[in-house]
Amino acid sequence: MIILNGGSSSGKSGIVRCLQAVLPNPWLAFGCDSFVDALPARMQESDAGIAVAADGGVSVGADFLALEAAWREGVVAMVRAGARVIIDDVFLGGAASQQRWQKALGEVGEAGVLWVGVRCESAVAAGREVARGDRVRGMAAAQADVVHEGVVYDLEVDTSRTESLVCAQAIAARVHDGEDPARRTPSTAHVPARPTTAP
Amino acid sequence: MIILNGGSSSGKSGIVRCLQAVLPNPWLAFGCDSFVDALPARMQESDAGIAVAADGGVSVGADFLALEAAWREGVVAMVRAGARVIIDDVFLGGAASQQRWQKALGEVGEAGVLWVGVRCESAVAAGREVARGDRVRGMAAAQADVVHEGVVYDLEVDTSRTESLVCAQAIAARVHDGEDPARRTPSTAHVPARPTTAP
Amino acid sequence: MIILNGGSSSGKSGIVRCLQAVLPNPWLAFGCDSFVDALPARMQESDAGIAVAADGGVSVGADFLALEAAWREGVVAMVRAGARVIIDDVFLGGAASQQRWQKALGEVGEAGVLWVGVRCESAVAAGREVARGDRVRGMAAAQADVVHEGVVYDLEVDTSRTESLVCAQAIAARVHDGEDPARRTPSTAHVPARPTTAP
Amino acid sequence: MIILNGGSSSGKSGIVRCLQAVLPNPWLAFGCDSFVDALPARMQESDAGIAVAADGGVSVGADFLALEAAWREGVVAMVRAGARVIIDDVFLGGAASQQRWQKALGEVGEAGVLWVGVRCESAVAAGREVARGDRVRGMAAAQADVVHEGVVYDLEVDTSRTESLVCAQAIAARVHDGEDPARRTPSTAHVPARPTTAP
Repeated sequence: MIILNGGSSSGKSGIVRCLQAVLPNPWLAFGCDSFVDALPARMQESDAGIAVAADGGVSVGADFLALEAAWREGVVAMVRAGARVIIDDVFLGGAASQQRWQKALGEVGEAGVLWVGVRCESAVAAGREVARGDRVRGMAAAQADVVHEGVVYDLEVDTSRTESLVCAQAIAARVHDGEDPARRTPSTAHVPARPTTAP
Repeated sequence: MIILNGGSSSGKSGIVRCLQAVLPNPWLAFGCDSFVDALPARMQESDAGIAVAADGGVSVGADFLALEAAWREGVVAMVRAGARVIIDDVFLGGAASQQRWQKALGEVGEAGVLWVGVRCESAVAAGREVARGDRVRGMAAAQADVVHEGVVYDLEVDTSRTESLVCAQAIAARVHDGEDPARRTPSTAHVPARPTTAP
Repeated sequence: MIILNGGSSSGKSGIVRCLQAVLPNPWLAFGCDSFVDALPARMQESDAGIAVAADGGVSVGADFLALEAAWREGVVAMVRAGARVIIDDVFLGGAASQQRWQKALGEVGEAGVLWVGVRCESAVAAGREVARGDRVRGMAAAQADVVHEGVVYDLEVDTSRTESLVCAQAIAARVHDGEDPARRTPSTAHVPARPTTAP
Repeated sequence: MIILNGGSSSGKSGIVRCLQAVLPNPWLAFGCDSFVDALPARMQESDAGIAVAADGGVSVGADFLALEAAWREGVVAMVRAGARVIIDDVFLGGAASQQRWQKALGEVGEAGVLWVGVRCESAVAAGREVARGDRVRGMAAAQADVVHEGVVYDLEVDTSRTESLVCAQAIAARVHDGEDPARRTPSTAHVPARPTTAP
């Protein structure tokens, strides 16, 4: 499992598509965008759901958090069932958001996850927000730094001056895609052999 | 959990959005479209993934089936974690496709699922396929009947002459949305008393 | 040239795609949606552009009207240059909106245009607005009747209980698609023969 | 009027959205993508329309060329009617494609158009093609150079290592957006000052 975290317009989705192209095995891609798409339309703009203010600030409500927690459990269950999964997320809560994933991951999280920080200079991300044209202006700048606060990564990439494909190749080099990640996880848990090599 | 099954262009997506609007609690919506979106681009048109022939016939490969099985496990895990979930699917294998869901559902499937057949006359669905303009022509007619073969439903709706919203209201009337569906399942399974009061 | 007028969620786009499919010659399709897509993002929600209120009411500003007038001139120029064109529009101003097209059309308007009213019962359109899920709720009901006030049609269709494809076939039966519509117009204007058959 | 020419995935659309954001007056944006969207679905993959081969090669037929010529006439008519218009196009025919625009432009073309070449290194564009995920792979590389052959520009930008917004600012600096572009053309024609700088 690969979890990418970065602010809006930092380039996560492009990296995900490149990862799916360069990794030899098929990986499923989910993320906060596909989760929000799964919500009822009325939760897109409500106190219980997710709301984007005119300045690009994002707030989420109790129903949103409860459904998101269940969604995380489901994603982890897909990994346990043998699927390779890439997640792109926006850790609005910084370290607390990472802990929510770690809690859902349980023992999978110890060895089976590659944590990737996707950085992008605030001004660059803000420019790309204008170029893509489908986001409330201000989200990119508001999220550029805050989503990384206190988060611990295995690897960080910076899209400010590096293409998505090059970032994806750097990430792919850290993924053991030849093995089945689901089988890797229990074997790490149950078989104490392999003590000298970090998985 | 609600599982809708119907052929391409039978009107499933519209019913799902209406269900999300009329049901008082928030329901997450997933389906074969969002699953395919999660696949690598190269699996959209390959032997290992999913391929749509010029006549609208659909074939899927081994990688597709394996990832789909893991995805079903994950969706069921979301339900176990407390989320209300609506699935819209195309049972290309008819009864065999339903059995795959039943296997993934385990004990949830006994009481916690409402199976809904979404029918649409072949000629009507074929016309709507032209009107929407984003599907290979022929899929609607090819799937209209075959996806229902041997499938057992709690409820069937027919969109040929009934609006999506009206179909959704009929389905919603069968859903006990006041309780938490995750908690309802064990209580229904274990406590046979409740014969006189609708839950 | 074919000009369809109807409220939001009345089914215009589906009819347009079906018309493009059933008419033997290739027809270009433009409309208020593609015009709005051509505007700067900041005009989507501003006093000078177009604004959709929370209740689905739509208001447009001076810049919007000026650009729309130039756009209409351009569309008519495409027809004069030999293109077959289908327009789907929302006559928020009723008869005044039709007159704006007639002014832009000039002599083309006399014989070369088929005016089509696309009706849909307000409650049905409101339900379809929920089913499509990408429109502010209330637009369909707000526009269902007002857009037709004082407008004169060659043909009206009602999508409340008639499929898009059937509506398109009724419209296509009134189109002389074997001839070149651009060449047809001057011949009607210059040659007074054909006095007994409506063009 | 601004006409941008560049290969697939060279970054034209992002520059267009940035131009619409930074230019003080409202500019309409059209291009080959919106033109293709206006075609009947059957022309997307046919001998008479446009076809994209498995290697990303693009071929267009006679109906396509005829409709495109009429579309260009219409776009120029919008400019004559007072609209500021940005076009992003892919000159598959190189200099011949530019001449088609010049023919349509007539006298507007002499002074009222800013020709912009959008360059992107072939390998970079190919990587972005993977990242966006919605284009046949190979188009970017196939078009990167050929579309610029023999084309004469007022200005060239290179998106390989320059952000869309920065490119747009360079272009905007060459646009006299304070004046009405339609009125600017005759005034440029009548005042022979500016003899030393090519327009």
